[in-house]
Amino acid sequence: MCAFDGVHVVGIDGDDTLWHNEERYENAQQRLAEIVARHAEVPDLDDRLLAVERRNLGLFGYGVKGFTLSMIETAVEVTGGEISGPEVQELIELGRRMLEMPVLLLDGAEEAVDRLARAGLRLVLLTKGDLFDQETRVARAGIAHRFWQVEVVSEKDEATYRRVLGRLDVDPREFLMVGNSLRSDVLPALAIGAAAVWVPYPLLWSHEQAERPAAGDRFREIASLRELPDLLL
Amino acid sequence: MCAFDGVHVVGIDGDDTLWHNEERYENAQQRLAEIVARHAEVPDLDDRLLAVERRNLGLFGYGVKGFTLSMIETAVEVTGGEISGPEVQELIELGRRMLEMPVLLLDGAEEAVDRLARAGLRLVLLTKGDLFDQETRVARAGIAHRFWQVEVVSEKDEATYRRVLGRLDVDPREFLMVGNSLRSDVLPALAIGAAAVWVPYPLLWSHEQAERPAAGDRFREIASLRELPDLLL
Repeated sequence: MCAFDGVHVVGIDGDDTLWHNEERYENAQQRLAEIVARHAEVPDLDDRLLAVERRNLGLFGYGVKGFTLSMIETAVEVTGGEISGPEVQELIELGRRMLEMPVLLLDGAEEAVDRLARAGLRLVLLTKGDLFDQETRVARAGIAHRFWQVEVVSEKDEATYRRVLGRLDVDPREFLMVGNSLRSDVLPALAIGAAAVWVPYPLLWSHEQAERPAAGDRFREIASLRELPDLLL
Repeated sequence: MCAFDGVHVVGIDGDDTLWHNEERYENAQQRLAEIVARHAEVPDLDDRLLAVERRNLGLFGYGVKGFTLSMIETAVEVTGGEISGPEVQELIELGRRMLEMPVLLLDGAEEAVDRLARAGLRLVLLTKGDLFDQETRVARAGIAHRFWQVEVVSEKDEATYRRVLGRLDVDPREFLMVGNSLRSDVLPALAIGAAAVWVPYPLLWSHEQAERPAAGDRFREIASLRELPDLLL
C-alpha cells in the first residue's frame, strides 16, 4: 500500500534534512560565549542572541552572514561595548569557517535520494538561507544531479510553496514536502493541500519551533530519510 | 527598422539599471572613512576595502550583508584593531540603513518597462545580490507586476544566463539583456549568442569594470532606459 498516492514531485529540505547544519551554528555560539565571557557574565546569552537574530530577520533574512552580524551585535550589546576589534575579527572568522565547512550528508540521505530519483519521482531541493552559501553547499553535497530543480528561497511559507509549485506547474496534490522543520517544511505544505513528511533532527533552532500537526493521510513522521522511499515506492 | 529582430524576451538588471544602488554603497564608504579617521590616516582606504571585498567574494557572494562584514573587517585591519565595539555597531547600523533605504527608480525606468510589457514582450528581472534584500527591493520598487519572471542569482556569468534561459525555455537568440554592467550584463549575454544593451550608470563598483565590446548588430549602448522601447518596438 502506498501512503501518498498521486505524489509525483517530492520537495526535500537541505539544512538538517539532507545535510547537517544547525551544528555549525551551535559550535559558533559556543565560541561566542567564550569570547563574551572574557568581558561579562551573561547567563542568558543564547536568548539575547536569539532576540537580536529575530529583530534582524526582517532585514537580514536567514543565513550565515546575517547570523554573523547578529553575533557581533550581540557581543557589543552584552559586553557594554567592551568587545575589542580583534575579537570582532574572531567572530567574522567564525562566520567564514561556517561558510567553508565541508557539507556532511545525513545518514541514509544519499541512498534515499538515489532510490527516489531512479524510481522516476521528480525531486526538488527546496531550502532557505543565503543564496550563495546554499548554492555552494548543494554543489559540495554532490547530489545535485539527482534533483530536477534546486530552489533557494528567502522564506518557506504558504506563499512561497504556491509560487514555487506554480512556476514548476505542479499541482499541490501531486507534491510532498519532506523536512526537519514543522514550521517551514510541514505546516505550510499541508496548508496548501500538499502532503508532508517530518524527519525531526536532534537540534532545532528555537525560531523554527512549532506545533506538531495531527496525524493524517497527508502527514507522516519518520526517524530517518532512509524510511522515505518505502512510503512512496 | 527594428534593431533586434527576433527578440521576444528582455532581461533587465535591477541595481543601477532599474533602481539606484551604488550610491548607498558609496555613502556607507564615506561614513566608514569618517569612523576610521578617528584612529588612523588611511589614504588608500577604498582600495583596502575593495581588496577585503574581493577576498570575501568567494565566500560571501554579492550584497549588503557581505559588504557590511567586509567594512568591519577592513576597519579592524586598518586601525590595527583599535576600532571599538560601539564603532563596529555603527558600521552594522550603516548596513541596516542600506537595507532599509527606499528604492528609487531611475528616470524613465518605469515608463520603459510599462511600454515594453504592454507591447507584449516578456520581461525578466535578472539581478544578483542577497536573495532577501533583492526580493524586498523588487517588491518596494512597485514594478514587479510588469515582469514575467524575477530571478535573483548569485553570479551573472555565461553559465548563469544559460541556466536561467534553459529553465525558462528561451532560446538565447530570442533574448536581450539590458544593464549597466559590461561585465555582468553585456559580455556574458553576447557570449552565449544573446543580444545586449548597455546603459552606463555614473557610478560603477571597481569590481564590475570591463572592456566595452565592439559595436555590432547584437550590441547597443543607450544613455537611458527611456531609449530602450524605441530599439525594440
